[in-house]
Amino acid sequence: MHTSIATVCLSGTLEEKLRAAARAGYDGVEIFEQDLVVSPDSPEAIADLARELGISLDLYQPFRDLEGVDKAQFQKNLTRAETKFRLMARLGIDTILLCSNVGTATMTDDGVVVEQLRRLGDLADSYGVNIAYEALAWGRFVSEYDHAWDLVKAADHPRIGTCLDSFHILSRNTDLSRIAEIPGEKIFFLQLADAPALTMDVLSWSRHHRVFPGEGAWDLSDFLTRIAATGYAGPVSLEVFNDSFRQGDTNRTAVDGLRSLRWLEASIADTIAAPTGSASAAEPAGPSTALDLQPLPEVEEPRGINYVELSTDDLGALTRQMHQLGFQFIGFHRSKPHVQLWLRGEARIIVSEVTDGVGTGADAGGTSSTSADEAGTTSAPVNGTFLRGIGFEVTDSRSAMERAALLHADEVPRDQAHNDEVLRGVFAPDGSEVFFHQFEKATPAWIQEFGHDHDEQVSHIDHVNLAQPSNHYDEAVLFYTSLLALHAEPSQDVPSPSGLVRSQVMSSTDGSVRMPLNVSPQPHAEAVAGRGIGSVVEAYPEHVAVACEDIFHAAATALSRGLDFLPVPQNYYEDLDSRFDLAPEFLQQLQENHILYDRDEHGQFLHFYTSTIGSVFFEMIERRGDYRGFGAPDAPVRLAAQHRKNAQLSAQNAQMSGQQG
Amino acid sequence: MHTSIATVCLSGTLEEKLRAAARAGYDGVEIFEQDLVVSPDSPEAIADLARELGISLDLYQPFRDLEGVDKAQFQKNLTRAETKFRLMARLGIDTILLCSNVGTATMTDDGVVVEQLRRLGDLADSYGVNIAYEALAWGRFVSEYDHAWDLVKAADHPRIGTCLDSFHILSRNTDLSRIAEIPGEKIFFLQLADAPALTMDVLSWSRHHRVFPGEGAWDLSDFLTRIAATGYAGPVSLEVFNDSFRQGDTNRTAVDGLRSLRWLEASIADTIAAPTGSASAAEPAGPSTALDLQPLPEVEEPRGINYVELSTDDLGALTRQMHQLGFQFIGFHRSKPHVQLWLRGEARIIVSEVTDGVGTGADAGGTSSTSADEAGTTSAPVNGTFLRGIGFEVTDSRSAMERAALLHADEVPRDQAHNDEVLRGVFAPDGSEVFFHQFEKATPAWIQEFGHDHDEQVSHIDHVNLAQPSNHYDEAVLFYTSLLALHAEPSQDVPSPSGLVRSQVMSSTDGSVRMPLNVSPQPHAEAVAGRGIGSVVEAYPEHVAVACEDIFHAAATALSRGLDFLPVPQNYYEDLDSRFDLAPEFLQQLQENHILYDRDEHGQFLHFYTSTIGSVFFEMIERRGDYRGFGAPDAPVRLAAQHRKNAQLSAQNAQMSGQQG
Repeated sequence: MHTSIATVCLSGTLEEKLRAAARAGYDGVEIFEQDLVVSPDSPEAIADLARELGISLDLYQPFRDLEGVDKAQFQKNLTRAETKFRLMARLGIDTILLCSNVGTATMTDDGVVVEQLRRLGDLADSYGVNIAYEALAWGRFVSEYDHAWDLVKAADHPRIGTCLDSFHILSRNTDLSRIAEIPGEKIFFLQLADAPALTMDVLSWSRHHRVFPGEGAWDLSDFLTRIAATGYAGPVSLEVFNDSFRQGDTNRTAVDGLRSLRWLEASIADTIAAPTGSASAAEPAGPSTALDLQPLPEVEEPRGINYVELSTDDLGALTRQMHQLGFQFIGFHRSKPHVQLWLRGEARIIVSEVTDGVGTGADAGGTSSTSADEAGTTSAPVNGTFLRGIGFEVTDSRSAMERAALLHADEVPRDQAHNDEVLRGVFAPDGSEVFFHQFEKATPAWIQEFGHDHDEQVSHIDHVNLAQPSNHYDEAVLFYTSLLALHAEPSQDVPSPSGLVRSQVMSSTDGSVRMPLNVSPQPHAEAVAGRGIGSVVEAYPEHVAVACEDIFHAAATALSRGLDFLPVPQNYYEDLDSRFDLAPEFLQQLQENHILYDRDEHGQFLHFYTSTIGSVFFEMIERRGDYRGFGAPDAPVRLAAQHRKNAQLSAQNAQMSGQQG
Repeated sequence: MHTSIATVCLSGTLEEKLRAAARAGYDGVEIFEQDLVVSPDSPEAIADLARELGISLDLYQPFRDLEGVDKAQFQKNLTRAETKFRLMARLGIDTILLCSNVGTATMTDDGVVVEQLRRLGDLADSYGVNIAYEALAWGRFVSEYDHAWDLVKAADHPRIGTCLDSFHILSRNTDLSRIAEIPGEKIFFLQLADAPALTMDVLSWSRHHRVFPGEGAWDLSDFLTRIAATGYAGPVSLEVFNDSFRQGDTNRTAVDGLRSLRWLEASIADTIAAPTGSASAAEPAGPSTALDLQPLPEVEEPRGINYVELSTDDLGALTRQMHQLGFQFIGFHRSKPHVQLWLRGEARIIVSEVTDGVGTGADAGGTSSTSADEAGTTSAPVNGTFLRGIGFEVTDSRSAMERAALLHADEVPRDQAHNDEVLRGVFAPDGSEVFFHQFEKATPAWIQEFGHDHDEQVSHIDHVNLAQPSNHYDEAVLFYTSLLALHAEPSQDVPSPSGLVRSQVMSSTDGSVRMPLNVSPQPHAEAVAGRGIGSVVEAYPEHVAVACEDIFHAAATALSRGLDFLPVPQNYYEDLDSRFDLAPEFLQQLQENHILYDRDEHGQFLHFYTSTIGSVFFEMIERRGDYRGFGAPDAPVRLAAQHRKNAQLSAQNAQMSGQQG
């Protein structure tokens, strides 16, 4: 599949955009006119650069407001078109995007448009240019793809074809069945964008909220399958207007986009065969394609979270809290002296100590001293206590890793003793490490490396709550979807004292893997830098939720061991009472144990939180019945308590520095 | 007018919200239930705090999903209501907001709802509670204010009244004429919010995009006038759900909101008289009100920009550039040794030198050594070259200053010699200084302080382009509207290499004052701090546009004096040609002088840019005919050129520090 991307998707100068597209691995780009106009490089220099980089210039765009106008205006428009054709010759581009008229069309008669398209075709022919005519969703008279196709068909000119853009088609909910009527060779270009399900005017939706395939709400696999079935053999190009992407890192956005194309390609590669023999175009094609679709190694949903790795420069505080929660110390890693294992039943936490910012050797989770992304950015190891990585149980770890690499994820560099379990992993968009652990029913093999002890407790990691930088949120959704076959549930907004927290759960179908992704409302300038590839972890804590059989027992143990529970206000329990009409003794028992409570039609949810160490805290939970949620109504209580704790700490620090000063 | 604000408008804990409301000067607050539930303070403690702060607790909200349900459910709902009534007694609040049923209503029969409201009223009566029933715009069966009023009227219960919320009413475009049917004493509460004109689902619009009155697109003066005419005498309260406000500084948002209420109050105070004598409620009231509306000193639109003040720690570079642009050095201020005046016709630039972060005495524009806002935040003077303030020509500077103070703007502290012209000013939301200069036809009096010289050039400040922090954008619009009677034109998005720049022009009707406000796409963590009250100036340059009679002459002078023009690419001129079909000689003349060009049906716009010093650059412009714009199509060219310059500088710096290291 010939992959391409419109330069308007990316930030930076035209030169930076071309370099980023080439480095990511696209086959070509669409040149967006505005990018050329503001560039100091001549069209010839741009063409040279593309040649040098080994990418093709697939399309020049956009040409606007040509058709449906009176004769005098049309003549002017032809003159304008001719200057573009000359420019395209200098760039070496042979296809131009013609958008249906938005501003100046006055003639509703299709016959006029057909005739004008034909005349444009004649002019284009003398320059060797092809016209890809596209119906904009907000076009004045032509706004549906099949209308544009009818016009192109009627024009019946070898230089006039159509351009199909998933945004303009899917945003209008148009019936897709007529795509099948279009012969592949009359589709002169194909543009793909996904979008979240928003109810807003289509122009704003298009200009600000498009995302890459797999990051929105649409079924682009179905869309591309329909295009493939026409016999279309041209570029599959991303045209995504998105405020975040336009201000993001150029290289990173390019990689994110290419990942979306590779994922989409693979999602249909197996169901669509290459054309058999020399089937004539007249025969019904069936599911075959000229797109040269490449599959990816298959991945099944993960079976569970094998372990979570925490890094810390405050080993005492962290392990004390884990002890209070009933975790048992198992041992140090046999070849990595700063790495410990703690277990609570099947909940496995690897603790790797960092001292003065120096990470100390890899553990099962793959701790490494430094990492560098493809763009050459190196990130220094950081101090603090933070969630470093997650080990996912997959059915075929080797294939998962291979797939990840083909999806342009960066491998975590890792030192490994020759007799250690081979674990490989990649960096997630937030800089955390994702490891692929071969699923096995018995105790994982790597646990031997710590001298495993038996643990009777029935307990496991229920979910891991990750903080995401807001500008890489869509990228994260695609990352977990494409690499791990997780699903994105609808997002929610949770009120906190410092704004709304956007929360969206990535999960496996059976719920054995659940990861709420949270976007903190305010990017703090003083945010902790680090955790891998150039990401910024915002000042929003992450947490590991551990499921247990008896929350009251867990709370009693924790209390007896002196756990610093996150405080729950009296007002909360009074409100709980008015919401759920609980037995007074039960309510009292909850309150005495700092336990929060939620209920739905399927079951109940009991949980308590610890205080935060660095940027990590724990949640202990007990699910009763088939409750599937995460206690969302209680999240504001937690956020407010954490806000108060932070404010107290800030005040104390200010006072202390005042006393010292 | 009794001013109030819902705690949900503000960030922080409940205690912080109450303190911020009191400090800003509100008379009361609405307690949002969620804020209480997550608070560690008991209802009694909250009531005590409010008493101590001298603010009333005007409303408890919201109570949801009561009416239109079957008998069993209604009984449960009454029990739930009773727990709230008890809680309200502890808080000392006598009015609760009842939202029309969104989730559980099954009965469409108004009679059922009326009966249930009446029964709720009986229960409320035994607790001394009043019910303010509000139609939510997305209510299941009740979504219009007049429907809610019909139900309240039919219930005919002394404890049942209605709550009117401008958002729920104006967002649905409901006919407002029936407001006049509601007797003021049956309006139990009034909530105000403004909103931008967005086309999106009303729930998202309401939950994320409400703004304070004067910051959106609605005519709230008309709305409040209608309410006032009913005889309503209760609180006028802000209920604004806005993502930025919820994560902003609590005190600052509170002040922003109160400013909106004061402005709104004053806007109708003169047209509505207080009730004369003891007019009975039965008589048609006419334009009279029980709201006790306080006017503000009137302000007319400013007549022009008297001067712009720039601060710099690179005096040589800045004044050299001004010299190249044809500015003449006039003199130093007689009592402020670091302050100079430069003129180009009537374009006046005050240059105040700062050395090592120490500002050095006030000038005409009011430079002062330090400033402190009401919240006690002090801002250290900063290095760099930046736009410090603007002097506006107003018809009555004393009254403008008085109005500004009543609108809660912070006065710029200022040292002044006893014989200097008295100039007073306030801080704008972006931290720049706004001075009110008495309009006079002759040369301004303060110029004498520099030993004024005559200048033959016909030139003036055409516009000033300000960068705004994105989270204080709405605040800035209200600030300039309410203090200076400027108007906000529709906003535009301008593409730049690092994202879309939102640009909106604040201007006076005759165009003598024009200020494009720009929101840079990305808040840079390494942004220059300072410029007054705790604001962050983003790394987006500001500029002063100077109008001249002959741009080619100005460019020739600048060229001969060695000006560092911002480069304009060849591609731009080729595109210009294809857009405007210009005479080749003219096009060449433009290009040779680095001049950009735009045209509309009214006239032409010729302009060139200088390079940036610190965060400031200049634009020289010539308007031909009645062109009213700002060359918006050329802005991307400028932004791209500035982006390239920055990238070059960064690369040079990196190289230099590499050589040093």
